[in-house]
Amino acid sequence: MKKLDKITPQNEDFARWYTDVIQNGDLMAYGATKGCIIFKPLAYSIWENIQAKMDIEFKKRGVQNVYLPLLIPESLLQKEKNHVEGFNPELATVTEVGGKKLAEKFFIRPTSETLFADLFKNEVSSYNDLPIIYNQWVNVLRWEKTTNPFLRTREFLWQEGHTIHSSSEEAIEFAKTMHKVYKDVIEENLAIPVVEGCKTDHEKFAGADITYTLESMMKDGKALQSGTSHYLGQNFTKAFDITFKNNENKLINPYGTSWGTTTRLIGALIMTHGDDRGIIIPPKIARTQVDILEIFNSKDERVHKLALELKDALLAKNIVANIDSSNKGPGFKAANSEIHGTPLRIEIGPKDIENNSVLFVRRDNLEKITSTIAEAANIASLLLQKIQDNLFESAKQRLQNNIVTVNSYQEFKEAIAAGHWVYAAFDGNGDDEVKIKEETGASTRCIPFKEPIKVSNDTCFWTNRKTKRFVLFARAY
Amino acid sequence: MKKLDKITPQNEDFARWYTDVIQNGDLMAYGATKGCIIFKPLAYSIWENIQAKMDIEFKKRGVQNVYLPLLIPESLLQKEKNHVEGFNPELATVTEVGGKKLAEKFFIRPTSETLFADLFKNEVSSYNDLPIIYNQWVNVLRWEKTTNPFLRTREFLWQEGHTIHSSSEEAIEFAKTMHKVYKDVIEENLAIPVVEGCKTDHEKFAGADITYTLESMMKDGKALQSGTSHYLGQNFTKAFDITFKNNENKLINPYGTSWGTTTRLIGALIMTHGDDRGIIIPPKIARTQVDILEIFNSKDERVHKLALELKDALLAKNIVANIDSSNKGPGFKAANSEIHGTPLRIEIGPKDIENNSVLFVRRDNLEKITSTIAEAANIASLLLQKIQDNLFESAKQRLQNNIVTVNSYQEFKEAIAAGHWVYAAFDGNGDDEVKIKEETGASTRCIPFKEPIKVSNDTCFWTNRKTKRFVLFARAY
Repeated sequence: MKKLDKITPQNEDFARWYTDVIQNGDLMAYGATKGCIIFKPLAYSIWENIQAKMDIEFKKRGVQNVYLPLLIPESLLQKEKNHVEGFNPELATVTEVGGKKLAEKFFIRPTSETLFADLFKNEVSSYNDLPIIYNQWVNVLRWEKTTNPFLRTREFLWQEGHTIHSSSEEAIEFAKTMHKVYKDVIEENLAIPVVEGCKTDHEKFAGADITYTLESMMKDGKALQSGTSHYLGQNFTKAFDITFKNNENKLINPYGTSWGTTTRLIGALIMTHGDDRGIIIPPKIARTQVDILEIFNSKDERVHKLALELKDALLAKNIVANIDSSNKGPGFKAANSEIHGTPLRIEIGPKDIENNSVLFVRRDNLEKITSTIAEAANIASLLLQKIQDNLFESAKQRLQNNIVTVNSYQEFKEAIAAGHWVYAAFDGNGDDEVKIKEETGASTRCIPFKEPIKVSNDTCFWTNRKTKRFVLFARAY
Repeated sequence: MKKLDKITPQNEDFARWYTDVIQNGDLMAYGATKGCIIFKPLAYSIWENIQAKMDIEFKKRGVQNVYLPLLIPESLLQKEKNHVEGFNPELATVTEVGGKKLAEKFFIRPTSETLFADLFKNEVSSYNDLPIIYNQWVNVLRWEKTTNPFLRTREFLWQEGHTIHSSSEEAIEFAKTMHKVYKDVIEENLAIPVVEGCKTDHEKFAGADITYTLESMMKDGKALQSGTSHYLGQNFTKAFDITFKNNENKLINPYGTSWGTTTRLIGALIMTHGDDRGIIIPPKIARTQVDILEIFNSKDERVHKLALELKDALLAKNIVANIDSSNKGPGFKAANSEIHGTPLRIEIGPKDIENNSVLFVRRDNLEKITSTIAEAANIASLLLQKIQDNLFESAKQRLQNNIVTVNSYQEFKEAIAAGHWVYAAFDGNGDDEVKIKEETGASTRCIPFKEPIKVSNDTCFWTNRKTKRFVLFARAY
């Protein structure tokens, strides 16, 4: 058990708060490999739970898991022009083995569209072979200049889905389906509300025709892209000369999608729910839902017996509990539970046994509740659902309250500087987006499917032209 | 659905048989990255099931999953001398990013002892922090010169466990515990019998004091190492200066273990059970346990309805079935089911509905069984258990019948040439092992824990000295 350090308050310095809680919460460690992190057991358990929830939904929709090589031959990556330009500066490159130079260089995959395209070429000849719906859970590398644990690391873990379809309509529909799966898993399990939409042409994925995105809001007001799904059109299938005979016996290129979510969701979870006491893990994604703290001056066998009984009673309701029977004081035990984000704790001592009562403390709002011993497991079950709901509702209110609209660029700059998201009419192009970002730090997050707030002004704050396109801007991770 | 090619018979050319069945069975594809393979859905599902079975057993024994970086800085790998010498020629090396040379080279992990040691250094200060029991499920790279799908590929998937303990006894005990977990999972689920033992000094892992191994026998008589668990002593903890205060307040180096199993188990499964019709997947590890084949001249709705009912009835018993209602003929459907290794199939046609019967065909021995429709799910459940048992028992008999002993090197050479494993007294050293391997192709597989056959001759066939050490030799993958 680690000594707990002081946590910088969120409103004093959010970036330092983040670093403090992930280190105190035992989520990660820095290792010898710069720009990469070590995912320690608690963080990795969050990822395992995200994987489990997602993978079930994938398989329900016909997704088959596969594994493709880590290394991409140089010649292969270069086949799709936009794609290679998008990734080139970040490519870690293997040039030698055992001290000897290789004939051809290999890139460590930054993503695997090219490898999947190369595979699909041999898998499809007729419309009967379509769709092909593959996914892999793997590590990828992008040599980022500035990194931030979980949010932006040179190596990260993700799933990448890759599909091909016989029609454009079917491919777009599938890209949207996966986008919806992401939204549901992220909102229902991670309790992170998201805004759904499309990226502008300037912000879309290198090689995509459409990029669907989910944008979530961190407690400091910044946006975080939490999952993207791309309609690739025929960009890769043409570049890789993938063809099939359609039902009119014509040879055409199939239509592709790709879609991914990453370990940055761990960062999103921390910055959506955490407070000045540490991280908060939503019950549905927590490895341990309940900490049972034995409170005593000197070890008490009755207390330990009750702790074990409670643990069993909770397990019978599919609630995983962990017992702290160490010799530390009650203050330390409570802080230790809080800093690791366990959503609910139970404190039991000799007095509680005499009074036939147990004390619950909710991690989300620190509310204290007592129950009889016999009722404890039922109460725990109810409280965990309340905590899950409250985390989501609180985050949703924060999101809604922090989106504003503007009528001029001056107002835009003020709103962004105040930490707001701006939703407004905008018909600028990519160059305009670059300028706005340089001046304000805000980028276009998406063109939302549904308006997050009501806006009636349809004059672009930047070009002063009338437009039907309403865009969401924010500073982002 | 793919056209099925002819499979070379096992006794004509085992290597070609293997290549034929893995390609016909849709298990893998060669991609653009030489020496690596693409794990297609069926093969990956086997790996997912192996992972699931292993991971449950790991967690019961206190194992916590983590994720450490893919890249190892050159300086870090060089800290343990034997270790770096063992791996050096096979190290894929990243020297540049986006065309620019890096200040320090990075190796793609061939295994991660050094990264874990570097992490442990900061995790432990007192005996209260021990043991630390970590594992990761990851990809690794070893640039092998000759490769063979699943068995030996430059990149493969595995789990690597890494632990440190406060005493040598506890570490050895834990290495043995994990060795036992491997044995149980491999025998009970993959139906592959194994011989347990230790490696000789010559064959042990680079950096280990003891290597425990499991050796299994393929249908061509060759051995395949199916899992290893290493007692590392203080080799890495000394090299990395990892220390802790023991319960006598003395500063000492902890004792380490590491243990791994890989995707070569997929190859082991194929070469243990497969026959001239294709692969055979043991029921406990199969994605699809039962293929339901609709047999008809022209589509019959009643047959399809029955197929759906049977699928549901099987699912209620946790048996996963797949329906083939395509327009292909019955011969094709049966061959297609067989080549993909589904352990049991049901054939139903219009006549069966009239007769209230269904036909089962076992994949392992092609036995045909009929049952009433109502009894079908119960019969399927019984048959799957029988198939699982029969696959294991057949393999076990083959293993036992193919181990012989020898009284001279001449007999040894003859036995090895005939495809046998040899169990005999041997007190030669590493140089002797090298010579024997050069001359016969056979290497020491292990010093078995229990004698696989009775041997009374305690004179070494090579040195002619008396010895108490009995060693198992075989040609191996």
